[in-house]
Amino acid sequence: MRLARATDADAIWPLLRDVFRAGETYAVDPQISKDAALDYWMTQPRAVYVAEEGGQILGTYYIKTNQPGGGAHICNCGYIVAPAARGQGLAAQMCAHSQAEARALGYKAMQFNFVLASNEGAVRLWHRLGFQTLATIPDAFDHPILGMVAAHIMHKSLVEGS
Amino acid sequence: MRLARATDADAIWPLLRDVFRAGETYAVDPQISKDAALDYWMTQPRAVYVAEEGGQILGTYYIKTNQPGGGAHICNCGYIVAPAARGQGLAAQMCAHSQAEARALGYKAMQFNFVLASNEGAVRLWHRLGFQTLATIPDAFDHPILGMVAAHIMHKSLVEGS
Repeated sequence: MRLARATDADAIWPLLRDVFRAGETYAVDPQISKDAALDYWMTQPRAVYVAEEGGQILGTYYIKTNQPGGGAHICNCGYIVAPAARGQGLAAQMCAHSQAEARALGYKAMQFNFVLASNEGAVRLWHRLGFQTLATIPDAFDHPILGMVAAHIMHKSLVEGS
Repeated sequence: MRLARATDADAIWPLLRDVFRAGETYAVDPQISKDAALDYWMTQPRAVYVAEEGGQILGTYYIKTNQPGGGAHICNCGYIVAPAARGQGLAAQMCAHSQAEARALGYKAMQFNFVLASNEGAVRLWHRLGFQTLATIPDAFDHPILGMVAAHIMHKSLVEGS
């Protein structure tokens, strides 16, 4: 796991493209351009990481400040695992890594704003990693196959002993 | 109540400035520049309105899409009342107006992502206007006077009979 470099953009884009075009997990316009997607994933966040093995990028995640001003001590992260690397625990590994990095950056908590209830693997994983569902927004997402699905807001304190 | 025009910017700015500089209600950098504040309030949203009386702008609100892609049917709004016009029901009037406008724009629900628990008048008002608190994020906001305060996520369906 390492910080992404600007030269990783062309290798990161296919991961973003497949997930965003499917429109089944991220609240992103499925028709988003490459430039806008890379801006969203690599430029706007505070830090971007890649999971690399043998020169292949198997996954990527970002850390961003969830709210500016008085809310700037809570971060948000997004994770994508390449199709070839799914089912091997990489999402859990990236999430654990992101929590350590977020702590090092001074964040006090991590919040996921939009975890689709239909994304059952993710919901189970985040619970297993200590995230709590704070809220469920009914009919929050128009899923291309399932229709309207709910979205969870999930949260974990990064302060030891809290 | 009317749509804001570009020429309203100089009259809207003092309302934004006072609220953002105080840093007690909006998750916005208190040092935000005039240009960035107007971009946030007037350019990025889908629509911006002003409450005008006798040539004076007494309040302003925006409607924006809360999440792109599959989440684009839920809107978010922000409201500011000028100090001279507080306590006269203008926030309730703007919120009612915004619900009608949001419905006309095709939105199915309205969500407030960050209502500070310390902003008790607002919380009471949104409840009175039919919003539900979906979640309370602990220690979500570093308030300049009160320290860490919680933030509510509030939601209202705009679909009749739902």
